[in-house]
Amino acid sequence: MEELKKAVAKEALSFVDDDMVIGLGTGSTTAYFIKLLGELIREEELEVYGIPTSHQSRLLAIESGIPVISLDETDAIDIAVDGADEVDPNLNLIKGRGAALTMEKIIEYRAGTFIVLVDESKLVERLGEKMPVPIEVIPAAWRAIAEELEVFNAKAELRMGVKKDGPVITDNGNFILDAKFERIEDPLDMEIELNTIPGVVENGIFADIADVVLVGTRDGVKKLER
Amino acid sequence: MEELKKAVAKEALSFVDDDMVIGLGTGSTTAYFIKLLGELIREEELEVYGIPTSHQSRLLAIESGIPVISLDETDAIDIAVDGADEVDPNLNLIKGRGAALTMEKIIEYRAGTFIVLVDESKLVERLGEKMPVPIEVIPAAWRAIAEELEVFNAKAELRMGVKKDGPVITDNGNFILDAKFERIEDPLDMEIELNTIPGVVENGIFADIADVVLVGTRDGVKKLER
Repeated sequence: MEELKKAVAKEALSFVDDDMVIGLGTGSTTAYFIKLLGELIREEELEVYGIPTSHQSRLLAIESGIPVISLDETDAIDIAVDGADEVDPNLNLIKGRGAALTMEKIIEYRAGTFIVLVDESKLVERLGEKMPVPIEVIPAAWRAIAEELEVFNAKAELRMGVKKDGPVITDNGNFILDAKFERIEDPLDMEIELNTIPGVVENGIFADIADVVLVGTRDGVKKLER
Repeated sequence: MEELKKAVAKEALSFVDDDMVIGLGTGSTTAYFIKLLGELIREEELEVYGIPTSHQSRLLAIESGIPVISLDETDAIDIAVDGADEVDPNLNLIKGRGAALTMEKIIEYRAGTFIVLVDESKLVERLGEKMPVPIEVIPAAWRAIAEELEVFNAKAELRMGVKKDGPVITDNGNFILDAKFERIEDPLDMEIELNTIPGVVENGIFADIADVVLVGTRDGVKKLER
């Protein structure tokens, strides 16, 4: 599994060019990409800046020697690279297992090319088959939103911390609800519906924004494009 | 002006009953209501709980002797009472001059009856005539969102603090963009559109949720209903 992750991370380097601003996703696969990007910058003396999507990716970028900037310091993001928890045949995604979905969507929605790195176990026929949809919510609203999600036949659980008592707190200071849907008919519709619930900051459905998905398989890296 | 505010705040007391859970809005008009509600609870020994929408209303409720609870401690909110910056003929609102719009919408959307208190200067033919729409955003995304609002012919400004250097920080730790629209054709559509921009936490268009608007006029309080 780790070998597949490394292989797609390496493949993603082929999208990197000099003078780029690169959105840096969060998670174990992207972590390989960030480390490799740091090496590439050093070897080829590239002038590349990274925009991290989380504390995790920021710390790792600094450690890897990638100069980091904030979104409000740049006019454009050339590419963004990130993992995903599920990918459907139209390249719609579920993301957010690492609780960084809000900043990830902020960055990746605005990238010229958004490149997703997964292994083949993440490919599904229909979003929500295996994974719940993580939803970042204002803390006071968590219970009301969890109840309202029943309208969509979703069972929501407040994500609890490990190595931290009580709920997980996101980088933005909010809670995460993990909502298991019986069926997600139309990902884009559901993404918008969820964002209209007062108290929802952002949700983990990423419809229509992935441009390229690199899939690690035992037969090599496959490239899916929209 | 203060007399008109007091008059509508007093009128709103007629919606209060024993054993109610009441959403407490934010702002100068609602402040009169909160003080009067505290007196009513004391005089009539009511068992009423308040759910504040901001630090401001929470502090004032405590000072006024209203027992406060959080949204996740109750199954239902009976009524909510709040001001507004603009009210159109269909009782759609612009709110957020006090930067409390997110928690206000979280509470008021879920109230059985949402009662709005304004003076007649707040009535407009079309939302956005006079006021910008306040939009709460994740800090890192402020500039990108401000640029994207140009698609809607809106000019957005980052709200700066007074008695605080730099931007206003909301009770949720975010920034406020004040977006002046040339024209808001369909408030509900625009409310949803704005909430689908990644980085937008919530926006100050409150379409289709006000049940009653009490309007302070020189000829007394008028009641508008949907």
